[in-house]
Amino acid sequence: MKDEFSFIDSISPKELRQKSLVKGIGDDAAVFQSESEMDEVVCVDTMVEGIHFLRSTVTPYYVGRKALVANISDLAAMGAIPSFYLVSIAIPANWDEDEVKKIFAGMSSLASEYDVDLIGGDTVSTTGPLVLSVTVIGRVEKNRALLRSSAKPGDVLFLTGHVGVSAAGLKLLLEKGIDGAFSNEELSLVQAHQNPKPHIIQGRLLATCRFRIATNDISDGLASEAHELAKASNVQIVIDKDSLPFHDSMSLFSDEERLHMALFGGEDYVLIGTVGEEHIDDLRTSFQEKGVPLFTIGKVEAGRANVLLKKDDELIVLEKKGYNHFKK
Amino acid sequence: MKDEFSFIDSISPKELRQKSLVKGIGDDAAVFQSESEMDEVVCVDTMVEGIHFLRSTVTPYYVGRKALVANISDLAAMGAIPSFYLVSIAIPANWDEDEVKKIFAGMSSLASEYDVDLIGGDTVSTTGPLVLSVTVIGRVEKNRALLRSSAKPGDVLFLTGHVGVSAAGLKLLLEKGIDGAFSNEELSLVQAHQNPKPHIIQGRLLATCRFRIATNDISDGLASEAHELAKASNVQIVIDKDSLPFHDSMSLFSDEERLHMALFGGEDYVLIGTVGEEHIDDLRTSFQEKGVPLFTIGKVEAGRANVLLKKDDELIVLEKKGYNHFKK
Repeated sequence: MKDEFSFIDSISPKELRQKSLVKGIGDDAAVFQSESEMDEVVCVDTMVEGIHFLRSTVTPYYVGRKALVANISDLAAMGAIPSFYLVSIAIPANWDEDEVKKIFAGMSSLASEYDVDLIGGDTVSTTGPLVLSVTVIGRVEKNRALLRSSAKPGDVLFLTGHVGVSAAGLKLLLEKGIDGAFSNEELSLVQAHQNPKPHIIQGRLLATCRFRIATNDISDGLASEAHELAKASNVQIVIDKDSLPFHDSMSLFSDEERLHMALFGGEDYVLIGTVGEEHIDDLRTSFQEKGVPLFTIGKVEAGRANVLLKKDDELIVLEKKGYNHFKK
Repeated sequence: MKDEFSFIDSISPKELRQKSLVKGIGDDAAVFQSESEMDEVVCVDTMVEGIHFLRSTVTPYYVGRKALVANISDLAAMGAIPSFYLVSIAIPANWDEDEVKKIFAGMSSLASEYDVDLIGGDTVSTTGPLVLSVTVIGRVEKNRALLRSSAKPGDVLFLTGHVGVSAAGLKLLLEKGIDGAFSNEELSLVQAHQNPKPHIIQGRLLATCRFRIATNDISDGLASEAHELAKASNVQIVIDKDSLPFHDSMSLFSDEERLHMALFGGEDYVLIGTVGEEHIDDLRTSFQEKGVPLFTIGKVEAGRANVLLKKDDELIVLEKKGYNHFKK
């Protein structure tokens, strides 16, 4: 980093999209106007080189996109519209300025797709791996935020997209390398890992449908996120193995492999949710009208906060991070 | 870190102070209500072990306090009232859980003094030094945020506290170590380094006084922050060396040393600002009524964006990070 100030100039947005922004980059803090009918929604997510991403599997541009996706996906899971983001980055000496600019270019490209403005941040050096921490701010209609705690016994469990695809893509990348020769089938999985899409449209459908909805985004794997729902709502969740929707390209893997990727893979950034059984058809219709899929994959039951996998005639306790055949 | 979830439970606040909070820790994102008469203010600041702090000079508890002070001070410089904070922390294996909890305890102690709620964050591991990134959100009356760009020729330049004290304390800590035997005089400087106070009261006085005010907080040193004001307002700033207010304990150092600490030391977290000459007496009165000092230290002039130091009958160009006797 030759000069921090010229670097900040170079990554500062040339155009701003949010009319509510009063002051962006260039003062002690950013200032924006609130909207009277909306609540504010905020979250932060951090990626560490070597832990959350490898330079051998994702280019700096897509590291940037993924960092922002991870956050925007959290807003999607609240039903919010993203508005602003701030970036804190700790840069080691072995990343040159052009590579770091590509991280920002990746974020900027995603930001332009969702009309989100970069309004602040902090750029520091570190003697360790690169640490990228993104804060995202959005809005949702007052008292309409989608909470994990809203699930009730009798609800239908749904997914807004395929799960396991990111883990499958990562497996292929680790085998063949970032410049590997991938078949078209493989490439769709590699792209799912490198360039996931946040489910903002789906979150907005869920927040504005006026049904009671609980949601969570699948950043840490289906099993783990189902546990979060079960715990927050104090219900038992049953996932029907045969209802899990698999991307066509997952046929590259064995049944057992793709099930494992779906349950424990993570980084898929689709939404898991629940809705009363009487509303699932209406919800499915509204998703169809927007051209986005909705898959029902199980149900919510009364009982101790827990997650079960129904596989053939067996009910297996799903731990957050793996199977457990010993517990009931 | 034995278990991330029990750790998060342990650092989650047991009581919440902000009534506008709808959902804090425990969902995909935090949700809070906006206030119709207020703008939202947000900033992020990052501290890296070995670069922004040393374990040999600041305990984990005060690392936490300082990280939050750095952010709350940015809100003070906007005239805002802090409401919420989020913490992203990347933890290396050589920090044990109790030490990390002390960082959070330090933040929590400061948060309770300013009625700020911890509402989210991210806890990750790293192979490098500890990286602590804090996002703070606050509010200021609509269109009353204090901007760097508001200074005009003819304004008086002021400070809301002593500068150079943090650098002086750091010097003593580096000489004697964190458990050194400090005199009372030295201790006041050491404490200024380890436990600075954000100037929220002062920022609120400036935001609500209805005068045109430009401000900046002194996190990177007086010279650097004066430059930010000069650049944003496109004015020339003249600092009168003989008007600089020095803490009594600074008499431990030579004239030249304490001037250098004041101009280039940083981390003092007081506010620098400008106000029209016709309002300085009223402003001083309102500061006196609240029992907080206001020091006038120079003036704003028309001219190229620049900072000069008036020393005896000489005008010296002050660069952001050092003197420059060659330029005029």
